[in-house]
Amino acid sequence: MTDPLPLAQALIRCPSVTPADAGALGVLEAALAPLGFACQRLTFGETPNLYARRGTGGPHFCYAGHTDVVPPGPTEAWTDDPFSGAVRDGVLHGRGACDMKGGIAAFVAGLKDYLAAHPGHGGSISLLITGDEEGPARDGTVKVLDWMAQRGEIPDMALVGEPTSRAALGDIVKVGRRGSMTAYITLFGTQGHSAYPQRADNPIHRLVRVLNRLTAQPIDQGSQFFEPTTLQVTGFDTGNAANNVIPGEARAMLNIRFNDLHSSASLTQMLNAALQAEEARYDMRIDCSGESFLTQPGPFVDALRRAVVGATGREPALDTGGGTSDARFIARYCPVAELGGIGSTMHKANECVPVQELRDLAALYRMVLEEAFA
Amino acid sequence: MTDPLPLAQALIRCPSVTPADAGALGVLEAALAPLGFACQRLTFGETPNLYARRGTGGPHFCYAGHTDVVPPGPTEAWTDDPFSGAVRDGVLHGRGACDMKGGIAAFVAGLKDYLAAHPGHGGSISLLITGDEEGPARDGTVKVLDWMAQRGEIPDMALVGEPTSRAALGDIVKVGRRGSMTAYITLFGTQGHSAYPQRADNPIHRLVRVLNRLTAQPIDQGSQFFEPTTLQVTGFDTGNAANNVIPGEARAMLNIRFNDLHSSASLTQMLNAALQAEEARYDMRIDCSGESFLTQPGPFVDALRRAVVGATGREPALDTGGGTSDARFIARYCPVAELGGIGSTMHKANECVPVQELRDLAALYRMVLEEAFA
Repeated sequence: MTDPLPLAQALIRCPSVTPADAGALGVLEAALAPLGFACQRLTFGETPNLYARRGTGGPHFCYAGHTDVVPPGPTEAWTDDPFSGAVRDGVLHGRGACDMKGGIAAFVAGLKDYLAAHPGHGGSISLLITGDEEGPARDGTVKVLDWMAQRGEIPDMALVGEPTSRAALGDIVKVGRRGSMTAYITLFGTQGHSAYPQRADNPIHRLVRVLNRLTAQPIDQGSQFFEPTTLQVTGFDTGNAANNVIPGEARAMLNIRFNDLHSSASLTQMLNAALQAEEARYDMRIDCSGESFLTQPGPFVDALRRAVVGATGREPALDTGGGTSDARFIARYCPVAELGGIGSTMHKANECVPVQELRDLAALYRMVLEEAFA
Repeated sequence: MTDPLPLAQALIRCPSVTPADAGALGVLEAALAPLGFACQRLTFGETPNLYARRGTGGPHFCYAGHTDVVPPGPTEAWTDDPFSGAVRDGVLHGRGACDMKGGIAAFVAGLKDYLAAHPGHGGSISLLITGDEEGPARDGTVKVLDWMAQRGEIPDMALVGEPTSRAALGDIVKVGRRGSMTAYITLFGTQGHSAYPQRADNPIHRLVRVLNRLTAQPIDQGSQFFEPTTLQVTGFDTGNAANNVIPGEARAMLNIRFNDLHSSASLTQMLNAALQAEEARYDMRIDCSGESFLTQPGPFVDALRRAVVGATGREPALDTGGGTSDARFIARYCPVAELGGIGSTMHKANECVPVQELRDLAALYRMVLEEAFA
């Protein structure tokens, strides 16, 4: 069995804090080229990306991930240098150990063992690795997918290697993610003296009614794989200092995390309806950072489940919780799921992963390939 | 009949913009002393006031007013110098012509004629004139009343000479005023990420429910002499810029104009009840600039009505609208009402009053004294 540790350490030693690459993609390329991968460096804007593919036949399995990491924060908070890749008591330390340089190394190790066992493998395996997942995510996965689509290289299935496991390796497979959108509302009224409200039109009262209408009832009860949609008013401002003046406008900011029962379009319609029900004069700007998506149970999800059971003896739960990931972009093209290590220290000081977990993850990823191509 | 014009002009020629006196009280004192008034200059803080009383017997009738005026604003907006007291086409021009140097001059003229007709008059007539009605009103009427109360000089009835008439002289007698209070509420929640609202407690949602509860229904339907109480939310602020962060607190500012069905204490209780019904953790600060008051129909109000009918042939309407006046302080001690000229140009550029209206007002005030002492 190939040990993922050396590659994980080599990657951690590149201080690739978004948007820096710091040599990380080169390290990965050097590991993949000898395995028969055709490597393409794709730079969009200032973002470095790597697309590596082995084989031209079908089916096409794609592993997606990122070599950029979040900043380490104050180094005094770390026991080891955040970019040392030190191993102490069987634990690998460093920024990216969980999220997700360790995962990439585990995939490459599992892949190597899979290819060794299947030298005549006729399908395609690719890696879509970006340096812009922790940043604005504008010039990373989404742009590489555009490029792949133009060349007819859209995969048949994709696995994102984010750390999804909660208590034990493989206990969670993420088969979707909630969508997220923000609405910026300005509601207009008519300014006036608070002693003569009949001559004014208080935009605060109208906005309170709109928001009360929107928050009084749950938007839904959740669906088979999703938690209920949530709407949170995260800002309400008038900037009025005069206690006896009814202001001319009031502004609100609403953040909605939504499941597969909704889209940003249907929710925008819901917001417009609530505003119109209160006869509001308003401006509304919508910023959707990702639609919800779900990879329906089917052959790909089944393959992942069998791989987890085979490698760990555990039945994984199918989950859609948490924030967003690059899987939201891939979902537009093909079935995608997320499966990776236990991310309990991700984004924190002293990020680390037990070396044994990395090795178990490598074995799990090999089993994923076995099942995906079975 | 005594002409009020010369005294009105002399008063207007003193540029007594709050807090300046500019000789105005001296002009008035010089007019009153020859009529047998004992004049006391009472200075509280930096505010000059005049208390002038004639007679020691009962009943004691008090005329209350102010010689300070609001600033003229840009003099380019005026046809005449704001402090010239010019008469053109039978109209007296200048800051204070309506509010309320003209009114004071009319009262003194009516008073002179009354005293000439009743040389043996056995009651008391006083004037309570402040230089701090248009300002913070802290060291004016309220302090003179304290001083009068200490000396046992509280009147039996008081008339405030603010311009109350709307379309024709005497058409409105104000027999009360609404109260005004402002509540400053800070509602506390628990800050958190908008993707995980179950781990936070959104203070905006709770404040929206509180304010919806407070504004959904009218507070009352008004009473015999008062319009309905109004509650206006004049500010709602969080100062939160992050669309995905539930803020830790939200602030609101509420201004309430209330009738005689309520007091600031009863309304504070209503606000507390609404906050507690939503289980809010909050701070609330109340600032009451005046309780509501009403002078019930009775001998004094009847005397004023008879005077208006006698002097103008008109039946006055009893009204309680508009903002606040110093009558709110006097109401704590004795029956008080407000009756004066037509204030359509008060606080504006080119403030002015027809000389005939001043003369009619002098006749009306003489009639008020006749009826009050009848």
